[in-house]
Amino acid sequence: MGQRKHGTGEVVNPWEVSAKEGGKIDYDKLIEKFGCQRLNQTLVDRIERLTSRRAHVFLRRGVFFAHRDFNEILDAYERGEKFYLYTGRGPSSEALHLGHLIPFMFTQYLQEAFKVPLVIQLTDDEKFLWKNLSVEESRRLARENAKDIIACGFDIRRTFIFSDFDYVGGAFYRNMMEISKRVTCNQVVGIFGFTGEDHIGKYCFPPVQAAPSFPSSFPHLFSGKDNLRCLIPCAIDQDPYFRMTRDVAPRIGYQKPALIESLFFPALQGETGKMSASDPNSAIYVTDSEKEIKNKINRYAFSGGQDSIEKHRQLGANLEVDIPIKYLSFFLEDDAELEHTKKEYAAGRMLTGEVKQCLIEVLTKLVERHCRARAAVTDEVTMTAEFEGPLEWQNEVYRKVL
Amino acid sequence: MGQRKHGTGEVVNPWEVSAKEGGKIDYDKLIEKFGCQRLNQTLVDRIERLTSRRAHVFLRRGVFFAHRDFNEILDAYERGEKFYLYTGRGPSSEALHLGHLIPFMFTQYLQEAFKVPLVIQLTDDEKFLWKNLSVEESRRLARENAKDIIACGFDIRRTFIFSDFDYVGGAFYRNMMEISKRVTCNQVVGIFGFTGEDHIGKYCFPPVQAAPSFPSSFPHLFSGKDNLRCLIPCAIDQDPYFRMTRDVAPRIGYQKPALIESLFFPALQGETGKMSASDPNSAIYVTDSEKEIKNKINRYAFSGGQDSIEKHRQLGANLEVDIPIKYLSFFLEDDAELEHTKKEYAAGRMLTGEVKQCLIEVLTKLVERHCRARAAVTDEVTMTAEFEGPLEWQNEVYRKVL
Repeated sequence: MGQRKHGTGEVVNPWEVSAKEGGKIDYDKLIEKFGCQRLNQTLVDRIERLTSRRAHVFLRRGVFFAHRDFNEILDAYERGEKFYLYTGRGPSSEALHLGHLIPFMFTQYLQEAFKVPLVIQLTDDEKFLWKNLSVEESRRLARENAKDIIACGFDIRRTFIFSDFDYVGGAFYRNMMEISKRVTCNQVVGIFGFTGEDHIGKYCFPPVQAAPSFPSSFPHLFSGKDNLRCLIPCAIDQDPYFRMTRDVAPRIGYQKPALIESLFFPALQGETGKMSASDPNSAIYVTDSEKEIKNKINRYAFSGGQDSIEKHRQLGANLEVDIPIKYLSFFLEDDAELEHTKKEYAAGRMLTGEVKQCLIEVLTKLVERHCRARAAVTDEVTMTAEFEGPLEWQNEVYRKVL
Repeated sequence: MGQRKHGTGEVVNPWEVSAKEGGKIDYDKLIEKFGCQRLNQTLVDRIERLTSRRAHVFLRRGVFFAHRDFNEILDAYERGEKFYLYTGRGPSSEALHLGHLIPFMFTQYLQEAFKVPLVIQLTDDEKFLWKNLSVEESRRLARENAKDIIACGFDIRRTFIFSDFDYVGGAFYRNMMEISKRVTCNQVVGIFGFTGEDHIGKYCFPPVQAAPSFPSSFPHLFSGKDNLRCLIPCAIDQDPYFRMTRDVAPRIGYQKPALIESLFFPALQGETGKMSASDPNSAIYVTDSEKEIKNKINRYAFSGGQDSIEKHRQLGANLEVDIPIKYLSFFLEDDAELEHTKKEYAAGRMLTGEVKQCLIEVLTKLVERHCRARAAVTDEVTMTAEFEGPLEWQNEVYRKVL
């Protein structure tokens, strides 16, 4: 299961995603290497049938492309059993970029479609341990990020957002220890590539991310429901944590969490991995102005179009490497419009500038909508969703839901 | 700093204490190897002067024989600055034996003599991680042990007893992470001898035992007193934890904890290490009946007396290896009586049976007193001292004390 970097090979782990030099991430190989399953059309059709609504664009377009036991979650749901969703974020920056929004947009859809409770973990402890951040700065970023997350439209009556630095303890800590006792040092070295020079904070963290997979970590939400299944929507780089979790689960008498896993959202410069936090021009942020969005897309979005208009009209665009088309396939809701754009662009009848203009409009609207929603998230809402302890009213809502 | 077992050499670490084959623990070598200081008569005199009372028998007889920065604690105390005490226990068994009582008896004396607050950590997480115990069984043992500890006569208005499984979280967890970030895997391997096959629970535990050394881990007790010094009475096998803690402390802006460290209490069978939990006949338990105490001492206590009365009258006893004399030197308060007994026994005028009879009386009284005190500890008192969260009344008391 080792994922350390070998030469210039592909690296996919929670802290680094990079393709082979000059290449693209080989998702088929990842599925095989990680041992998860492809999310095929039959499953997507089944979701549509069970939820009586159109599948999310991220399902229709294969953004969420892999899973573990998602079919079992649907089996249970079909029998009338609920499940809960678990997703999260490491709050390492003030502003989120579009790639960060993907799991949250998708989780919001799942929550709404299946009407299920959701826990969102903000791993401020992880970011404190991995980055040059103080405890207080990590917690502040967690609170700020919580607002962006809530702005994604979750049903806050069914959502529990927590920061590790504030919530770890009690039943959650006891589950962390149950997990820690079943994972050897050699195993985390194999899974995460830690070295002897790494601090022990890193070695201790995987059980923190594993613990929310078990309902007993949230006694104020799921008391007496130790067998409630958990579904984790996340990018596939998080898979190592949950391979570990699934290995431990039956040994401590719990259900394995199911997963539904996404591709990485490509950088503006091209599809070789995730976006880089250190290069602000590699991504569109939810704090970018209309002008910044326009400028970034026009200047940096890698184009599959030809060098000259003449050549483009003649040969058409290479959609395989074209970033505006990739981005549109994530965020342009209208299937017909997307297909039309791709066809015209590939045939050379649409120019790169026109496709970019379309993307600018789509993203400007998305970012504007997000900013309006975020502005409406008061400190009070954040605190309610996030930092209160056993919330009686939440508890009641959950009991009704489950 | 490695303390792994090499051949048949001496091993002293928190989980194993054994002398070289057939020998005794070499405490001078331990002091040198660990880098602590001997607690000399000048310091004992100073304690008597500062507390205006006779030094505890464990000080007069060298049971607490080593320290780190204890003189600085006294300097501060002399200037009118308070400190707090921190001790603890890993609750691995239902009943405590006499060896377990030693740090608590001594800590009770320190609390009374210096009138300072005290935190007592019950490392039920450690015992869960190291032993074949469930979380619930470890917590139960913690609650049972808490009663024995309270029975040692602490001022419960100035004492906070907590189980890790219940208390870890919040400020305490944040300090655990501050510590974890500053200790590498190689360091804990060097200090504690963990291997790659050990589970990560072990690697994560040292910061849990380190955290109570810092007052900010107890915001409900020591809010705003981040510079309050901490004094840790413990057996010297716990030194590795606090060497690590003292190394980290200045790097996270905290004071180093001071230590005052004891010898090991010898097994009935002889002074080669600590008592063995797996052999009930190696120790006197606080649950032993008068008959059991009598039987254990008469049958198992290793004697330095001679094989026959004639030879004994002629040669006298070898006090160096005699367990009844060792035990009396821990628990017989009266210095004159102890000296007299040693003199008569060494000269062959007292027989082993007479010395054992004296010890039986001393220990029977001690155990009876303990049992009466333990019976008076109601569940309510345990719960008050141990498991309530921020105790307002405690808080008030501490503010008055500090």
